[in-house]
Amino acid sequence: MNTFEVTYHLDADAAAAPDLAESVLLEQTVETPASVARRVPFVRTQMMGSIRELLPADESGYRVKLSLSSVTASIEPAQFLNVLFGNVSLHASVRLVDFELPDAVRALFTGPRFGVNGWREATGVADRPLMASALKPVGLSLQATIDLCRTLAEGRVDIIKDDHYLSDHSFCPFEQRVRGCLDAVEEVAARTGHRTVYVPNLSGPPDTVRRQAAFAQEAGAPAVLVAPMLLGLPFFQELVTTELSVPVLAHPSFAGSTRIAPATLFGKLFRLFGADAVIFANYGGRFSYSQAVCGAIADQLRAPWRDLAPALPVPAGGMQVGRAVELVEFFGRDVMLLIGGSLLEAGDDLRDRTRALTERVARAAITLNHL
Amino acid sequence: MNTFEVTYHLDADAAAAPDLAESVLLEQTVETPASVARRVPFVRTQMMGSIRELLPADESGYRVKLSLSSVTASIEPAQFLNVLFGNVSLHASVRLVDFELPDAVRALFTGPRFGVNGWREATGVADRPLMASALKPVGLSLQATIDLCRTLAEGRVDIIKDDHYLSDHSFCPFEQRVRGCLDAVEEVAARTGHRTVYVPNLSGPPDTVRRQAAFAQEAGAPAVLVAPMLLGLPFFQELVTTELSVPVLAHPSFAGSTRIAPATLFGKLFRLFGADAVIFANYGGRFSYSQAVCGAIADQLRAPWRDLAPALPVPAGGMQVGRAVELVEFFGRDVMLLIGGSLLEAGDDLRDRTRALTERVARAAITLNHL
Repeated sequence: MNTFEVTYHLDADAAAAPDLAESVLLEQTVETPASVARRVPFVRTQMMGSIRELLPADESGYRVKLSLSSVTASIEPAQFLNVLFGNVSLHASVRLVDFELPDAVRALFTGPRFGVNGWREATGVADRPLMASALKPVGLSLQATIDLCRTLAEGRVDIIKDDHYLSDHSFCPFEQRVRGCLDAVEEVAARTGHRTVYVPNLSGPPDTVRRQAAFAQEAGAPAVLVAPMLLGLPFFQELVTTELSVPVLAHPSFAGSTRIAPATLFGKLFRLFGADAVIFANYGGRFSYSQAVCGAIADQLRAPWRDLAPALPVPAGGMQVGRAVELVEFFGRDVMLLIGGSLLEAGDDLRDRTRALTERVARAAITLNHL
Repeated sequence: MNTFEVTYHLDADAAAAPDLAESVLLEQTVETPASVARRVPFVRTQMMGSIRELLPADESGYRVKLSLSSVTASIEPAQFLNVLFGNVSLHASVRLVDFELPDAVRALFTGPRFGVNGWREATGVADRPLMASALKPVGLSLQATIDLCRTLAEGRVDIIKDDHYLSDHSFCPFEQRVRGCLDAVEEVAARTGHRTVYVPNLSGPPDTVRRQAAFAQEAGAPAVLVAPMLLGLPFFQELVTTELSVPVLAHPSFAGSTRIAPATLFGKLFRLFGADAVIFANYGGRFSYSQAVCGAIADQLRAPWRDLAPALPVPAGGMQVGRAVELVEFFGRDVMLLIGGSLLEAGDDLRDRTRALTERVARAAITLNHL
């Protein structure tokens, strides 16, 4: 029997849960009345799946484990999502909690091609958290954007990413920005010995993104930024496996369904589809994830999982400079700290404030190493 | 000032709503502390937007109208989504309610290329609701699938769509299915005079979908089925504008965020991105939308909206044969009724039951015409 286990949370009481579980099972397998599906032997034995477990959830409601057909799920990446959370995503009372990865589905994906090690090689930072910042706000001129990039590099951040609103604007065109920022970090490296990885943002329909990817890689960009949910996960995976030869940093824009558990969406799906590092909304910032959820995302990204490379967690979203040490202590060494707006508040002191921050993180990491 | 109005619902009380509104505004414009963004004149005047209105919502919480930058939103379709509901989609207390379509964004899209008229031309049905059914469950052999298609055509449905789980399975390969089903409906038309439009499902990463689209159109498919959220809206739009010369029926799989109002997601965004007909979970079926929400989706799809063609609403999801007349009365003439599993329960009587249904719908439409 070619099945794999998928877990859903049901907002239902003891009386309603069994029926809802049954209807989720039908929806994610044959989407046909059971009496119809059972008529065909192949459908009955290979496609209908089963309810493996239905138990009260810790919080409230019920948790159901279903065996679903990996015959359908392993055809291609979009069908995998379709089986995982296609139609039931429309059920207001159903959330995707977790899934098991069968061999046939595993074979569709490369997962992270570079993962944690790729970021360590690209930055030359072996054993401490990576410090990242962002070029923003959108609206800065080309020259102001390049100047900001240079200043942050002089401040010795490891990674500088485009803001996700940076696109191919007339006031800051994609190609000139990519070339200018790559030149700026190279010039700073030659002068100071500190290497900074500039990460341009790729955004648009497939043809546009492919052109941007080709240009960025040709120009020497050592990594790229992509928002998988904005672009579509199947295209994201195709881009990763057929176009990109550098690590990819995944942005969470448009991912906002609380109906997929964050650790599963960001920690498993983004990793499976090929992200080498994943930005997520950190606890205590502008968004509402709890510390436990953020820990679970980070754990899931780095945990051994079949033969997939680990990916780097990137807590972000309104992070304050003063929290860097706390975050290093919480997330440990294999993390990229992304601090943008709070650094930029330094104004003319940006370079020095950035440098002070990177040194503080390095010291915190040394303490970690001695624990 | 290049701005457009976007409306969000905030789960917040009177004390918290103003701050939350302010933070949504920053998130969807400059994603930088306001003090930083204000330093640059172009950013301050062109990019920061403003709060236009903040009022208690009818239900609970608050409704905020923001002016957001169309400079960023009009760059390309992915950035439009990014500005509309990128990062704030991650805020558990924020929902996208509605948006206004500025000229610069309108210019990015074709909207429905065929719309309601395209379906009427393809089916030859001028003035009554269209009746659609589906080939399912997945797991039927190639021959059984083609036989089912023929029987439904003999039952005189107007449209037969692939189930969204039908992909390129070894037991029912895409190309053979498309050819076989097209031949079957053509043979029935020659014999009975009733024309049925067969709609194959396209699914996968962009390269796969493009190959399938080319094959299907070459083989003579008069329309195609695509799930825009599964494939990614920007790719969907590129597919529609660069590859498809036939109407597209949009499937709602993976669209399950209650955080975008259904009438806005299915009625406006799917239409704007180019769907000619949009399947949605109908009231009283397997899903939880109310009758009012379904009416709003249908109204939005067909309402005059700038110069965009109207698209055809397709209520679906566990629809019962017995409800066909009620639905015609509710949705009116410009609708495609999609009834799958409930028809299939007829077993050996499928052809006759289908024909009885299509005749009942036709009669209900005549009654409508006389009202």
